[in-house]
Amino acid sequence: MSQSLYVGVDLGGTTIKIGLCNHLGELLRTYEGPTETELGTDRILDNIAAYVHSLVPPGTPEWEQVHGIGIGIAGFLDIPGGIIKFSANLPFRQVPVRHIMEEKLGKPVKINNDANVAALGEVWGGAGRGVHNCVCYTLGTGVGGGIIVNGRLIEGFNGMAGELGHISIVPDLEAIQCGCGQMGCLETVSSATGIIRMANDAVARGDRTSLSLVDKIMAKDVFDAAKAGDEVSQRIVARAAFYLGKSMAALAVIVNPQRFIIGGGVSKAGEYLFEQIRETFEKFSTDSAKEGVDIVPAELGNNAGVVGAAGLFLYA
Amino acid sequence: MSQSLYVGVDLGGTTIKIGLCNHLGELLRTYEGPTETELGTDRILDNIAAYVHSLVPPGTPEWEQVHGIGIGIAGFLDIPGGIIKFSANLPFRQVPVRHIMEEKLGKPVKINNDANVAALGEVWGGAGRGVHNCVCYTLGTGVGGGIIVNGRLIEGFNGMAGELGHISIVPDLEAIQCGCGQMGCLETVSSATGIIRMANDAVARGDRTSLSLVDKIMAKDVFDAAKAGDEVSQRIVARAAFYLGKSMAALAVIVNPQRFIIGGGVSKAGEYLFEQIRETFEKFSTDSAKEGVDIVPAELGNNAGVVGAAGLFLYA
Repeated sequence: MSQSLYVGVDLGGTTIKIGLCNHLGELLRTYEGPTETELGTDRILDNIAAYVHSLVPPGTPEWEQVHGIGIGIAGFLDIPGGIIKFSANLPFRQVPVRHIMEEKLGKPVKINNDANVAALGEVWGGAGRGVHNCVCYTLGTGVGGGIIVNGRLIEGFNGMAGELGHISIVPDLEAIQCGCGQMGCLETVSSATGIIRMANDAVARGDRTSLSLVDKIMAKDVFDAAKAGDEVSQRIVARAAFYLGKSMAALAVIVNPQRFIIGGGVSKAGEYLFEQIRETFEKFSTDSAKEGVDIVPAELGNNAGVVGAAGLFLYA
Repeated sequence: MSQSLYVGVDLGGTTIKIGLCNHLGELLRTYEGPTETELGTDRILDNIAAYVHSLVPPGTPEWEQVHGIGIGIAGFLDIPGGIIKFSANLPFRQVPVRHIMEEKLGKPVKINNDANVAALGEVWGGAGRGVHNCVCYTLGTGVGGGIIVNGRLIEGFNGMAGELGHISIVPDLEAIQCGCGQMGCLETVSSATGIIRMANDAVARGDRTSLSLVDKIMAKDVFDAAKAGDEVSQRIVARAAFYLGKSMAALAVIVNPQRFIIGGGVSKAGEYLFEQIRETFEKFSTDSAKEGVDIVPAELGNNAGVVGAAGLFLYA
């Protein structure tokens, strides 16, 4: 009767989402409220505690079953120390969030970065269920990633394991600078930002493309135009897919996962994108590393964050 | 008094080397004998057992302290099953070596591939001692590798984790085919074979180089000529070093190790090579992934195999 429960927190710049999971990674229910970033860090942390208590009221038998609260955050973290060192969207600077939240909630707390947590969510309760070696990509504003080896999220020496968007993979002759300062990072071509940048460049230089009729180009416009036969858009998508597939071929002989899971807004382009990624992956992978390996879409969508944050108590 | 001991076996095509290690990864003594490959698999396995017994005679108190025997092998293995599926240098085809050797020796046996085992040796008792996240390269005939995450060797879904030589990293325009069938693998440019191939190509096409005076070019000749100012040789070394450094920059955001360890014959070129590798690594790595990360030579030389094989009982 007394099953183990886990609470996950997806701490975003505008919304805090809370989820309650059972030990199988099934999401039982969620709660959402505003982050109120403008009211400062103390208020944000109070809000997290209040929303967690709204989802699972303290004093109830269910609260007693909660083993811990995991929090996923976009930012640079000291994961073992439970400290947010810096976040672009949130005002935290060197804040010992784990310690503060453990005091507020009276339960163990863990923090981890949002891409790692989304990866964990997919492996625990989504497209990677039961697969112990997975690499997850999140294609959004940037390219995030998370790597699960033998059922555990890997962090690396500086907490930078799985930062797949910063693999320098575009050859020098066609590389541009990434927001991180390096040249040729995967996310310069395979993120929504990268796709939009390539589209805007094409329009600005006067390439003949249906995109020149679009007011404010989004990644979806580029995929729609490509599917409708626009050659410039097709080349942009092919380039985004090529470097994704090539990075996966490298990962196949580095961590050699059984499954690649691709989520995030860009992944909604569907099979049109996936087929091109698979083609490049096949082309550049050594046979014995790709045998039985598949490339599939993420399943949990926006819930990956809360499920994965809850999963930190089992898999990180 | 009764410390734990571990036996490691480096099974090569011509020589079998056996080593005895204590629990700290210190190599206490070694024994070597011929493999006698031409006499077939039964004889090879009998030889391993005989050499192990020569190193640590059964019935002695020391034999009682031996926890297990690890074997490192160049070939395609079913690691969990303990089976050699195929080896280029040895006549094994689908042979359940672990099972057979456990019967012969009456102790637990583990097998793993030679590059993984060499990596483990360096991390346990060599250049990576005390460093829990390491990536090791072995630059020899090919480019081998082994990855240690949180103190454990990673295997991957098909046992292909750490096969760093087969990262497809050379851009299409300058890629050649690798022995594995793919194009642009790291080992086509950064192995001894790759370096010799580039040197022979240069001589054959009539490039002005001091290498044209060398009868049978070895990798060492290319390094010596480069250090002496031969421009063609300098470019060959620069190319080998560039792609090594670039692969390490990718690894820095994939598994994010604290240390890269480089061993094998080619690594004997020393600081001349290492400086060029470090320069490329610095250039292509994101700051937060390279902070505190170093690139160092292996320390154990030919003993890495036996030490690492012995270490399989603690770290794999």
